This record gives sequence, structure tokens and C-alpha cells, in this order.
Amino acid sequence: MPHIALNSDDPGIRGLLRYRPETGRPLSELAEVLLRGPSTLTRGERELIAAQVSALNGCQYCTSSHSASAAAQLPGGMALVEQVRADPGSAPVSAKLAALLKIAAAVARSGLDVTAEDIAAAREAAATDLEIHDTVLIAAAFCMFNRYVDGLATIAPDDPALYAAGAQRLIADGYLPPAAEPTRRD
Amino acid sequence: MPHIALNSDDPGIRGLLRYRPETGRPLSELAEVLLRGPSTLTRGERELIAAQVSALNGCQYCTSSHSASAAAQLPGGMALVEQVRADPGSAPVSAKLAALLKIAAAVARSGLDVTAEDIAAAREAAATDLEIHDTVLIAAAFCMFNRYVDGLATIAPDDPALYAAGAQRLIADGYLPPAAEPTRRD
Repeated sequence: MPHIALNSDDPGIRGLLRYRPETGRPLSELAEVLLRGPSTLTRGERELIAAQVSALNGCQYCTSSHSASAAAQLPGGMALVEQVRADPGSAPVSAKLAALLKIAAAVARSGLDVTAEDIAAAREAAATDLEIHDTVLIAAAFCMFNRYVDGLATIAPDDPALYAAGAQRLIADGYLPPAAEPTRRD
Repeated sequence: MPHIALNSDDPGIRGLLRYRPETGRPLSELAEVLLRGPSTLTRGERELIAAQVSALNGCQYCTSSHSASAAAQLPGGMALVEQVRADPGSAPVSAKLAALLKIAAAVARSGLDVTAEDIAAAREAAATDLEIHDTVLIAAAFCMFNRYVDGLATIAPDDPALYAAGAQRLIADGYLPPAAEPTRRD
């Protein structure tokens, strides 16, 4: 049961975005730009970074959601996502994505853990400054989303089919809320 | 030196918001709503939560910035901010703020570290659900901002006078960027 009384039964971040639309709007916009906006990283690659960081933070709702979104948008599907989560160093991803995943894992521990060597390795694998920037910010943003979702003890359903359906809605509609959102009753 | 080539010499988060205005805008809006928008927590109290979390994360730029903003807006000034950072349990703040600071410190470790007892203690001290929500989200957001600032190795000036001047600008103008921001050159 969530730590506070929400105004819907929506699970995870969805219930929180609906509860506090004043913060929900910039949070949704941030997710939309980072995970779906114009980028030389594919949407699947960016969802994979989000899934990996969420798994490192032990956030069941975000890990399940973004694993499903990554799986639906990457040729390797859920098998690849699970390989990355289990052992990112040996998963069959490009050298560039492997280097970016390593940076994201450092960010999940602490921003201070990102080393000049991590950055040099990403650049060696042809990552651009903007790709490095976005990787750090995606990882940092999920350190926020994960703590927000778990810090308020929101509901995380178990059924993988629910997350797979959510991924399809997300792919169709994006992260921005529909125009007419109900407001908090308080 | 920052890990990537920014398009200004602005230190800390300011250089990052300017480098990537597409993400800078929702990040600035989030800070404005959380730290300065309508709330039953004072602006000083909210800046104090931001300063405490930033200190726990070891982020020099954010700790200095938000300590200066908190000090400028709290009757206890910098002495109080330093007491909270050194030993939040014994600092002379209200029982409600003490309970919220304890929740924020848990969030800084992990969202999963916030206990039902932490929430009950805050409620016992008359914290509302919305105050608990905002405390969790402020703490979570600074786990993002801190990692963003340090993960890209942005510059953190040493001179406290610079942060004090920044706090005065912030109090006057808020966190939203001026209308005409330069865009990234890339």
C-alpha cells in the first residue's frame, strides 16, 4: 500500500504523476525528451539504459516497465534485456552501448564514480558528447524516478503482461499525459 | 574540467541547463515547482532538504548552492544549515521538519529505505501527505541533480561569496531560465 493516499489506483509512477500534476508535467516532459526525443541513440537503447539503472536500484516497477519498453524496441527483445541486466559486460551490444551502460552503472552508484577512463572508453567507441550527456542524465533521472516510486511505496503489479501492454501504449502515445488529466482532490 | 565540451563557462548545473535546453527546461520547471511553488513548507525548509541530500551525495556544487539558498531564507541562517548537515537529529528545527529530513536522508540511500515508521513519525509531527510527497520527490530529484552535475564533472567554484550571490539571484528570479537562452552549438 502506498505511504500516502493517492487519488487513483494507478500503479508506480503513474499514480504519482496523477496525484501531483504540477510536478507530473515536467517529469513527463523530461522522460519524453530523454527517452523518445530526437537522438542518435535509438529509443530501445535509451530504454535499456533506464531498465539497467532501475534494476541496479532494485525498483521493481521501473525495471519491469522499462525492460518491457526496451524489449519491444530492440531486435534482441527481452532475452537481450535480461542478458544486459544479468551481465552487461558480456551482453551482445555494440561497443558504444556497452561503454554507455558502464557509465550509467557508475552514475547509479554516484556521479563521482564516473571516471575519465569511462568517458575515454565511450569516446573511443565513437560516442558523441551529446550521447554521453544524455546517458548520464538518463541514469541520473532514473535514480530520481526509482526513489520517487519506491520512497512512496507505490504498487508494482507482478504480471509481465501488464508491463508488455504498457510498453505498447507507451510506444504509441509517449510519456506526455493526455490533455485532460484529473486533478488531485485535497 | 567537465567530461564533455559545454557551450559556456557556467559552473555546475547552470552549464548543463544551457548546453541542453530541451532537458534544461523541464528540469528548471521541476526545481521551480518543488522548491518555490505554492507549498505549506517554506522555501527555506525545502532548500534545506535539497542541501542536506546534496551533502549526503557529496555534491559540492549543489550543497554549496542550496545551503546558501537555505541560509538566506531561514531565520537560523548558515549556522542552522551547517548544524543540520552535521547532525540533523539534534539540530533545532521543528519536529515536522526533523521527521521530513529523516525521510529525505533515507531516500538519498534508496527509496526502499523509507519505512512505515519514518512516515508515521512525520504524520505524528503533523506532516501532510502532500508534504511527505514533496519531501520524497525533492530528495529524489536531488539524487538526480547531484549525479548529473558530478557525473559530467562540472566545475564547482570554491568561493562561498559566489554561492551567496547566486542565492540572491535565485530568490529574486527563481529557477526558470530567462526567455532568451543561447542554444547548444553542435
